[in-house]
Amino acid sequence: MIPRYSRPEMVAIWEPEARYQIWFEIEAHAMDALVTLGVVPADAAKAVWERGKFEVARIDEIERETRHDVIAFLTNLAEHVGPEARFVHQGMTSSDVLDTCLSVQLARAADILIADTDALLAAIKRRAYEHKDTPTMGRSHGIHAEPTTFGLKLAQAYAEFVRCRARLVAAREEIATCAISGAVGTFANIDPAVEAHVAKAMHLTIEPVSTQVIPRDRHAMFFATLGVVAGSVERLATEIRHLQRTEVLEAEEYFAPGQKGSSAMPHKRNPVLTENLTGLARLVRGYVTPALENVALWHERDISHSSVERMIGPDSTITLDFALHRLTGVIDKLLIYPDRMLKNLNKMGGLIHSQRILLALTQAGASREDSYRLVQRNAMKVWESDGQLQLFDLLIADPEVTAWLPVAQLEPLFDLGYHLKHVDTIFNRVFA
Amino acid sequence: MIPRYSRPEMVAIWEPEARYQIWFEIEAHAMDALVTLGVVPADAAKAVWERGKFEVARIDEIERETRHDVIAFLTNLAEHVGPEARFVHQGMTSSDVLDTCLSVQLARAADILIADTDALLAAIKRRAYEHKDTPTMGRSHGIHAEPTTFGLKLAQAYAEFVRCRARLVAAREEIATCAISGAVGTFANIDPAVEAHVAKAMHLTIEPVSTQVIPRDRHAMFFATLGVVAGSVERLATEIRHLQRTEVLEAEEYFAPGQKGSSAMPHKRNPVLTENLTGLARLVRGYVTPALENVALWHERDISHSSVERMIGPDSTITLDFALHRLTGVIDKLLIYPDRMLKNLNKMGGLIHSQRILLALTQAGASREDSYRLVQRNAMKVWESDGQLQLFDLLIADPEVTAWLPVAQLEPLFDLGYHLKHVDTIFNRVFA
Amino acid sequence: MIPRYSRPEMVAIWEPEARYQIWFEIEAHAMDALVTLGVVPADAAKAVWERGKFEVARIDEIERETRHDVIAFLTNLAEHVGPEARFVHQGMTSSDVLDTCLSVQLARAADILIADTDALLAAIKRRAYEHKDTPTMGRSHGIHAEPTTFGLKLAQAYAEFVRCRARLVAAREEIATCAISGAVGTFANIDPAVEAHVAKAMHLTIEPVSTQVIPRDRHAMFFATLGVVAGSVERLATEIRHLQRTEVLEAEEYFAPGQKGSSAMPHKRNPVLTENLTGLARLVRGYVTPALENVALWHERDISHSSVERMIGPDSTITLDFALHRLTGVIDKLLIYPDRMLKNLNKMGGLIHSQRILLALTQAGASREDSYRLVQRNAMKVWESDGQLQLFDLLIADPEVTAWLPVAQLEPLFDLGYHLKHVDTIFNRVFA
Amino acid sequence: MIPRYSRPEMVAIWEPEARYQIWFEIEAHAMDALVTLGVVPADAAKAVWERGKFEVARIDEIERETRHDVIAFLTNLAEHVGPEARFVHQGMTSSDVLDTCLSVQLARAADILIADTDALLAAIKRRAYEHKDTPTMGRSHGIHAEPTTFGLKLAQAYAEFVRCRARLVAAREEIATCAISGAVGTFANIDPAVEAHVAKAMHLTIEPVSTQVIPRDRHAMFFATLGVVAGSVERLATEIRHLQRTEVLEAEEYFAPGQKGSSAMPHKRNPVLTENLTGLARLVRGYVTPALENVALWHERDISHSSVERMIGPDSTITLDFALHRLTGVIDKLLIYPDRMLKNLNKMGGLIHSQRILLALTQAGASREDSYRLVQRNAMKVWESDGQLQLFDLLIADPEVTAWLPVAQLEPLFDLGYHLKHVDTIFNRVFA
Repeated sequence: MIPRYSRPEMVAIWEPEARYQIWFEIEAHAMDALVTLGVVPADAAKAVWERGKFEVARIDEIERETRHDVIAFLTNLAEHVGPEARFVHQGMTSSDVLDTCLSVQLARAADILIADTDALLAAIKRRAYEHKDTPTMGRSHGIHAEPTTFGLKLAQAYAEFVRCRARLVAAREEIATCAISGAVGTFANIDPAVEAHVAKAMHLTIEPVSTQVIPRDRHAMFFATLGVVAGSVERLATEIRHLQRTEVLEAEEYFAPGQKGSSAMPHKRNPVLTENLTGLARLVRGYVTPALENVALWHERDISHSSVERMIGPDSTITLDFALHRLTGVIDKLLIYPDRMLKNLNKMGGLIHSQRILLALTQAGASREDSYRLVQRNAMKVWESDGQLQLFDLLIADPEVTAWLPVAQLEPLFDLGYHLKHVDTIFNRVFA
Repeated sequence: MIPRYSRPEMVAIWEPEARYQIWFEIEAHAMDALVTLGVVPADAAKAVWERGKFEVARIDEIERETRHDVIAFLTNLAEHVGPEARFVHQGMTSSDVLDTCLSVQLARAADILIADTDALLAAIKRRAYEHKDTPTMGRSHGIHAEPTTFGLKLAQAYAEFVRCRARLVAAREEIATCAISGAVGTFANIDPAVEAHVAKAMHLTIEPVSTQVIPRDRHAMFFATLGVVAGSVERLATEIRHLQRTEVLEAEEYFAPGQKGSSAMPHKRNPVLTENLTGLARLVRGYVTPALENVALWHERDISHSSVERMIGPDSTITLDFALHRLTGVIDKLLIYPDRMLKNLNKMGGLIHSQRILLALTQAGASREDSYRLVQRNAMKVWESDGQLQLFDLLIADPEVTAWLPVAQLEPLFDLGYHLKHVDTIFNRVFA
Repeated sequence: MIPRYSRPEMVAIWEPEARYQIWFEIEAHAMDALVTLGVVPADAAKAVWERGKFEVARIDEIERETRHDVIAFLTNLAEHVGPEARFVHQGMTSSDVLDTCLSVQLARAADILIADTDALLAAIKRRAYEHKDTPTMGRSHGIHAEPTTFGLKLAQAYAEFVRCRARLVAAREEIATCAISGAVGTFANIDPAVEAHVAKAMHLTIEPVSTQVIPRDRHAMFFATLGVVAGSVERLATEIRHLQRTEVLEAEEYFAPGQKGSSAMPHKRNPVLTENLTGLARLVRGYVTPALENVALWHERDISHSSVERMIGPDSTITLDFALHRLTGVIDKLLIYPDRMLKNLNKMGGLIHSQRILLALTQAGASREDSYRLVQRNAMKVWESDGQLQLFDLLIADPEVTAWLPVAQLEPLFDLGYHLKHVDTIFNRVFA
Repeated sequence: MIPRYSRPEMVAIWEPEARYQIWFEIEAHAMDALVTLGVVPADAAKAVWERGKFEVARIDEIERETRHDVIAFLTNLAEHVGPEARFVHQGMTSSDVLDTCLSVQLARAADILIADTDALLAAIKRRAYEHKDTPTMGRSHGIHAEPTTFGLKLAQAYAEFVRCRARLVAAREEIATCAISGAVGTFANIDPAVEAHVAKAMHLTIEPVSTQVIPRDRHAMFFATLGVVAGSVERLATEIRHLQRTEVLEAEEYFAPGQKGSSAMPHKRNPVLTENLTGLARLVRGYVTPALENVALWHERDISHSSVERMIGPDSTITLDFALHRLTGVIDKLLIYPDRMLKNLNKMGGLIHSQRILLALTQAGASREDSYRLVQRNAMKVWESDGQLQLFDLLIADPEVTAWLPVAQLEPLFDLGYHLKHVDTIFNRVFA
């Protein structure tokens, strides 16, 4: 995590203050349950809730000596609570606290990521409707194919992020479980009722069977999901990078007056935000593999997952949060150039209508092979003229073509509206 | 894909015969819809259904010339259908066929994987109940921790694969969509009704917005899910490898009479199946990254995803199918040694009860620090005696301990049943 | 491995025939050494060399029963050799044969990859010199920056693949070792002299210390290197894909007369080869992670690496061989359009000279900040005019600019040659 | 990067102070070269060297406004240098500074990693000689195979880290290049002599051909190499984790008096350092993929690599530095238990001699199949007796065995020394 690519709300989840606060709540709620069970006196729970507090610096100090973070926390807590502190953590293991805390943190992180996605969806939707009918070139293989609209491009992105949102919701559900089951998950020293009580209080579900730790397939699924979402961030970022290329220039990241695109070349306006998003996507995807490798812990648990999660827990959620937010800003303020879109669309002398002509020839009775040959031989001339020749002109001068399709039938085939007639249908599917 | 790690049913999905059959069905169903729309004559659809067939070898032959698989298929189909063939594929693009076909293949592959998981779950459940109450050592960090039962170990695996199953169901849903939307997804040359008809006939949902291709975030999620499942396969395989270690030997892969464990060392019985599963898990996880990289196609599509999917589509599903099946066999026939489990459990002179004694000291009024120190100093002697000394003997000889806990109170703390009292609770959570 | 992305020479290395032939040679050479050591009779070695042969089908048949490939091979070999066969494999373990064989296969695969790289380098060099002085746009962030030459673009690729070649040579060296050291690498049952003899005969070095297996850090380094080379393949492929975009069209993959770019759109000429290379690069990179995970085998060895290598050994070398060869063909026949390059270069009204003007203003005495501001404010007008305005015209009309640089000093700053004066220097560095 | 897994020397390389200092040196050395070339006045260079300094906080302040780190640095520098500052950075681009700086940082990081490896090698060597002749069980598949020595286990690790060291040296060489070649690498505005001068002054080689940036295949190779080294760290860590398992307990991480292994179970001594190393290895490996994805930048450069490197540059080098250092400490203080090794070695009733007996039977004239059958049938009885039966006793009671090998010939086959006779040979290979 580096400040440059971080937002405070997500960072806060991962700060010691927040972590210890969650630990405190888990321990205190557990005491309430233990009181109910008659295991600890009611006064002890009361003391913890009333006098319980902690200081990060003091915990650090103790940890330097004990080399055990939970023990350091409990020691610091005891300094405030007093003798009743000996009932804290009764029958629990460190992992009961650590793993349940991680669940809370990941669930909160997921909440932010879901909210980020909602903001992104809102931005995409607004711009999509704004340009629902703005004709633009559809490209396959980077090559002009057939017309589409800029709104449709954004509708695709919208539908993709709706899926991402659903995946994040599922990932959150995967991870939001509570385990307070003791050293190997048998509840030997702690009643299952404690787990149930803490789970409810912390808005988690209970882990049906744990083994000191919450099983790491849950976390693997969580981080894998972030990797998929990062892929979608990269897709939309890549689209914008392409559109901003000098020769295309159909859209541009917002460029503030006075901004410097390059220290050396004053003329530059670079898509640096979306390039940055491409890099951030690589990072978030890179965290997937360590998370997958974390699943196969030894027997009831080993601690190899811990260092991995200390890094990728914050790094992946902070980075993806930043990326989603940055992407929202990019979309929100994106400079869109309909004139240039139209200019590009018309650049290739009508080639974009080649399929329709092919179909018309077939429907007029020409064989598929002949139709293809007739269109291709004229299209290639246009192609090689770099758009100087017009396909329509060549076709009407080709008697083999006009034998099947006279000029009057050819002309309407070059109508742009033909390609855009189902835009509303698709918008209804996506946004309804 | 190599035969050694393949099963015929899954392989069949990926064979040319199956692929072309799906293509045929897509094309033929599309024609039915085009007939309904009045775009092509009813006779043409009838001709396709009645006379349509194909030969893999002939398609290969044509493809060597045209270098285009869909065109080769259509040409071969036309050889059988005759002149009505010119109505086939009307207004469609190759991707309409290819991507919808891939959806069908992945959905069928998912069905097999789900069935595999069901078989695995059944095997785990049977063995779990068989050993519900078989005491065994619970280990954290590879070190004896506290007792559990072998049934609980398997219950954990069961719960994990129940989650895997749910993930596979979700992954199947992600992928089971149909796109017949034309060159850039605008339905310019084909009515959306065709897509709807084919989707229904092929048991798919419609893709709300496609761009010649079905968006690859769906496939990324699918392959990422397989990677997570592979992680769970590795976890259970690793458990068995550990249990079969010579010094542990609490369970063994079935070893057939006459089987040779090693060409050089006739005494060997190696956990080769679960080691193999560990390797297969690496492979399936390795396919996740290319799938994630496939998401960010250029503009409406580029074809970089295609070679990736030609490889990882079969490789990941065939490998995971084989792995799940192999794991089922391993569990089903696993040799389980309760006597050895008990022997290991008792190996460390009662150290496994250390937490309970710690708690009892605390509850008797000793401070947490003192309690820890008292138990640890006796436990370390047992530890260093390699199980020759018994913790109980040392404790009753330690006056600082007996000051808090007299012998009569110490004795019942060494009861194994204490650890197993919630087994039924957990089984109810997992299997109910 | 699928035929579509395979070349026969590399495939042959991985076929059973080749593998068994290497096994045979290892066993026979080992016998020669054992004869020298007096361990086995000279006749036995003679018998093996003279009568030793094998049949793949027969080995398969035996393996189906014994489930052990080396035992199956030895049994089949014995059927031909007769009683002297009992001296074959004396004191050896299967891994001695398997691992040394894999070394031979990977070394041969590396030889082909190195030769592939040589062919690619030759093609790049030829085209680089052909276009050493062809001016073309240099682009950072996809945005016009300053002029370069097409030869320089290729010189960069050349230097990169020279590095790739050196890495492949180093990777080959890493992997070309021989281990014949017995069950745990102690040479208990076989003298180190056998290893030395076989190593020399098979053109390998000896493995200083093995543990039944050759350590897998060597293989990890090998496959990681292939992943890096794949990255370089992707870089050059991506460059060509960009150059072929309709709006750029400065180069094109060769398009054969009669070729069909799209079944639906007869006008299309798509960069499908380089898109394919992008996908193949993803695959080769995807094999790196499993290879890295193979390093940490348990104790003296476990067999988890084996299934991984059975897949990625062939898949990564075959795919990269195919990719390098395909890329060579693409470069060799690449259609290059100098006119279009020049047209694009001039497209932005002289903006490409902005840095030089900035420097000239600074050198004339303007502050860096003022200079930047003056150039940028004029450059942005050109930018927004979409190349309709010329930077030169605006500058000479800006009195703040001409106060520092009069027209006569501005004019020569727009000289293209200024940018190309060091082309020979760079070519000397790269190709000398 | 988190403090818990960081060491100050490596962290320092990546701190702003260090980075700006390198920037300063690059700029100042470049000025010297420009003076020599007559491009800038000698006084300007002198002023920079004499008055040039910077403040991190001030640069941050400026950057918040300009959003460009190099411009912020230059502005701050100018505040100290005065008017001569306008000659600083003459003809250079930001990347000239940034990329050359990254080379210096990575080279310095490599130096530390190489020194770390040297320290690790020294520790391994010392312990290897200490236990050169300590017999211990060699295990394949986690199953007892044949005897080896603990020194040989460490000799293997030594040889592996010797290879790692060589790879780090090569990786350092890959990365230690300098590029000062201008906006697209043509040296349009800066003479190649500047690059040569700065390269020499900063102990780098010149980059033969750059394109504003140093090509990222170099960095990919660097980070891939770190991933391989991490794999070797994991291998040795895994070995120790296995040896510390309760049932094996042949070695243990050092456990300080008063240390707490578990907050709940006072008896625990867990291999937490090596488990931690396993996790850290996953992290370092996880950074390989983003580095590989960074290679294919668009055209002359895009900036997608930048965010990746800002994270993985520090994270991978700091983590690996920490891991190598921690592993050195683990080896250095490792508690090694020769008695327990011998006890385990003898645990399986002499099964570890099975191969030697097999060979002796063959050499006595029995067929390979018969020999195998005879040894296996007795070995399996020992196996199933859990080491209660002795192989020797069973063999001498098996008339089919004694028919080939009478007792007097069987007895010497159970000699441990037989397995250790080549230890010196291997030590000479590894340490000579």
